[in-house]
Amino acid sequence: MTELLSPEGLEAALRQIGAERYHNLHPFHRLLHGGKLTRGQVQAWALNRYYYQSRIPLKDAAFLSRAEDPELRRIWRQRLVDHDGSTPGTGGISRWLALTDGLGLPRQDVVAGIGILPATRFAVDAYVRYVRDAPLLQAVASSLTELFSPAIISERVSGMLRHYEFVDERTLQYFSHRLEEAPRDSDFALDYVKREARTPEQQAAVLDALRFKCDVLWAQLDALHHAYVTPGLIPPGGFQPS
Amino acid sequence: MTELLSPEGLEAALRQIGAERYHNLHPFHRLLHGGKLTRGQVQAWALNRYYYQSRIPLKDAAFLSRAEDPELRRIWRQRLVDHDGSTPGTGGISRWLALTDGLGLPRQDVVAGIGILPATRFAVDAYVRYVRDAPLLQAVASSLTELFSPAIISERVSGMLRHYEFVDERTLQYFSHRLEEAPRDSDFALDYVKREARTPEQQAAVLDALRFKCDVLWAQLDALHHAYVTPGLIPPGGFQPS
Repeated sequence: MTELLSPEGLEAALRQIGAERYHNLHPFHRLLHGGKLTRGQVQAWALNRYYYQSRIPLKDAAFLSRAEDPELRRIWRQRLVDHDGSTPGTGGISRWLALTDGLGLPRQDVVAGIGILPATRFAVDAYVRYVRDAPLLQAVASSLTELFSPAIISERVSGMLRHYEFVDERTLQYFSHRLEEAPRDSDFALDYVKREARTPEQQAAVLDALRFKCDVLWAQLDALHHAYVTPGLIPPGGFQPS
Repeated sequence: MTELLSPEGLEAALRQIGAERYHNLHPFHRLLHGGKLTRGQVQAWALNRYYYQSRIPLKDAAFLSRAEDPELRRIWRQRLVDHDGSTPGTGGISRWLALTDGLGLPRQDVVAGIGILPATRFAVDAYVRYVRDAPLLQAVASSLTELFSPAIISERVSGMLRHYEFVDERTLQYFSHRLEEAPRDSDFALDYVKREARTPEQQAAVLDALRFKCDVLWAQLDALHHAYVTPGLIPPGGFQPS
């Protein structure tokens, strides 16, 4: 990139990345939402995705530990509240555990990460490290996959409720909350990068950050797909559907 | 240390460190509370201490980014709320700015850290790094200077109100809040280390962490004392009282 984009041009370029690289395009998601997976395959997805959920507050706290502006911290802090809750048993992580509970996974195994695919850890840990180490602008930009999540969540909830008798509104409660939280978060982050990316180099870095984050999400589904769909090659130590 | 202390024995050893090394024993604090400082010297103290205040939420966020237990994060998160507030203009950092405002320091210079002593930065940055990098148990233990702060705060507020016509209840509002917040925080941290330090080595590390933190506070007063009291040798770039 050699020219400075307008803020609207930058937003369009970000949305284009989502249109090409967001994980709603991954075959595993189409199988998941289309009712094509067994309960064991859905368990594997929920178990691995728990690790991602559990690291999100650590990622956001790493961001806060680098944000020198109290106002920025105050706004970003809400993400910790959303995930960790305000009292025991509330918050996004607890709601994800309602899903794994509903799928019959032993909660202590989920929390301990037993059977999680190594590739899940590698991808998620790379994201946490990125937010800890990259320039703050890129750390913000890497959160922008939230721009695309309301669409996938709506698809997911309606598809899963229609197709699987082993999930219900209660076990999918995580997603209804995210439908409210994600747009608030992504609006803020989008405004931030449109305002703060003031050089072509910064804009290129913002776009790269979103590509990186799309890769993080995509790689998790690749690993699930390889282990539990095609060729169904579960790596040593990986969760074995019964 | 070769023997395992009881939890009560560990608490006593921690309190003994406070009795010997907490910065209420530093001559600068006796001068400050005893009304022996000029307005310029009090300004230098408030300016440098602002840097410490401003780094505390970054330190606490660094802690949160390493705490894998949502319940521990939820409790520790209150420290961010205390310092950053819930709305613009609230929280401990804003209350410290009320003090520097009241002392006539330009707010933009305070926030930008203009004139802060290098030794202040070195000490404070060492604390933030410690909490980011040391084992979690030691990170918790390093907060335990709060055990000793209610006494120094009471002394400070009554002494400063009595002796200086350039401070009042409003500019000292930071401290009245800390009188409520600090005991809640230090009770939690003390219970945590008494419960989690289960080997002589861990107990020794906990005691070292508190000694380290006492050093961080003491070094800040040494730098102020050297620059603004005896011998009054302000380093290049340091704040010059008018």
